[in-house]
Amino acid sequence: MNAGPGEEYHSEDEEYHSEDAFLGGRLTIRQPRAGYRAATDPVLLAAFTPARPGERVLELGCGAGVAVLCLGARVPGIELRGLETQPAYAALARENARANGIALTVHEGDLRRPPPELRALVFDHVIANPPFYPRGAATAPRDPGRETAHVEEATLGDWISAGLRRLRDGGWLTLIHRAERLGGILAALEGRAGSVLVLPVAPRAGRPAGRVLVRARKGAGGPLVLASPLIVHRGESHGADGGGYAPETERVLREGAALEPGDAAKYR
Amino acid sequence: MNAGPGEEYHSEDEEYHSEDAFLGGRLTIRQPRAGYRAATDPVLLAAFTPARPGERVLELGCGAGVAVLCLGARVPGIELRGLETQPAYAALARENARANGIALTVHEGDLRRPPPELRALVFDHVIANPPFYPRGAATAPRDPGRETAHVEEATLGDWISAGLRRLRDGGWLTLIHRAERLGGILAALEGRAGSVLVLPVAPRAGRPAGRVLVRARKGAGGPLVLASPLIVHRGESHGADGGGYAPETERVLREGAALEPGDAAKYR
Repeated sequence: MNAGPGEEYHSEDEEYHSEDAFLGGRLTIRQPRAGYRAATDPVLLAAFTPARPGERVLELGCGAGVAVLCLGARVPGIELRGLETQPAYAALARENARANGIALTVHEGDLRRPPPELRALVFDHVIANPPFYPRGAATAPRDPGRETAHVEEATLGDWISAGLRRLRDGGWLTLIHRAERLGGILAALEGRAGSVLVLPVAPRAGRPAGRVLVRARKGAGGPLVLASPLIVHRGESHGADGGGYAPETERVLREGAALEPGDAAKYR
Repeated sequence: MNAGPGEEYHSEDEEYHSEDAFLGGRLTIRQPRAGYRAATDPVLLAAFTPARPGERVLELGCGAGVAVLCLGARVPGIELRGLETQPAYAALARENARANGIALTVHEGDLRRPPPELRALVFDHVIANPPFYPRGAATAPRDPGRETAHVEEATLGDWISAGLRRLRDGGWLTLIHRAERLGGILAALEGRAGSVLVLPVAPRAGRPAGRVLVRARKGAGGPLVLASPLIVHRGESHGADGGGYAPETERVLREGAALEPGDAAKYR
């Protein structure tokens, strides 16, 4: 925790923000105590993005910047940009980039109407962790800010369309989302992106997937691959031996490893 | 192998057909030696169909009847019908039903224009193992008969639409298909059927799925569940300890067990 410019400011800030370590301490991220708080999802998203040095990456809805900064920490020499509709999150993302010594340009705007300087660029990768909201909105979204920004307006299809528009031909769209929305994701990709790789993320062995990681190449025609699930936690349940991360997840979350199901070369 | 009506006839028939045991010998199925030959797929399809006694089931493209007869062997007191476009397969399915003492009505016709007596019925379950054919048809289909019947004409979307049309509201569509077509399957179900359950079928632990079992309820709104994969074979590869079926698959293929991922009650 860095000291603020004054004790009073520091205390006030601490009331609203926390500083959290990611990738085994390689990244420190300041984020609001209330509202959307990054945990494992953006780290998995960054680990699943097949970016290489020299490539240009855009995160849609980058929030405080966790995913895009995790990617910057793993892959050297990539150009990172974020698009964020809420100025407070955009400012946090910029601050987090500076504090971690990673170059990041954050644009402010709605993903369906991106600012002109972003529309002028094409990317090798677009990544996103779209907000989770129920179809029919039976449950209130957890984050009022995100609700204002996207939930009442942009659909999952809007996120995918916005991502595909910013990609070069053959560029990669990489997403993490609730497993229950896999149908909507694949339907939105049909005919627009191929060589789809779906990596189910299950909380424990033998359990249904809670999340899916999905990546696809714009304009590609390769067949979909449904990979063996990534298991997050060891053991069958919370309990004596059930608290830790499974080995592959541990390597991703704590050591910043890439997430490459099976034969990685085959999918890239 | 039953003796035919005459030695010469028997020999000639044996040249073109084999008799194969399914469900640990509970079923004996006569099928052509060339062309489409049932193996594990229709057995898994039947095991994944949540049919109960008293319900009415239709198999689209029933071929020699393996799936629908496996279902009849597992669930007593269900009404079984098949639709098959090729008269030779329809005749084989009727013969196999008789030989195994299972009541089955086989209709002949194209699934996109089913005969009037079938259009007059609604079903609790429609099941299908649609033919596999490449998009763009780079490779010749394995079965010239199937090609004539469906491959050049009916799309995967046609199969799903035909199935949904024959279901009552809340009835179940259950499919097995290549995992690479999961996107097309889910896209075709979007907005028409919900409570989708996807069970990946992987040849071995840690490997991508080769097949997917998918079931969905017509008009339902429940979320998609992506279940933990069914593993077909033990071990990491063919070899000394890699030849056998994994225990759950063994129960399904050899003992005729139902295939219920996780908490079965939750999904039905």
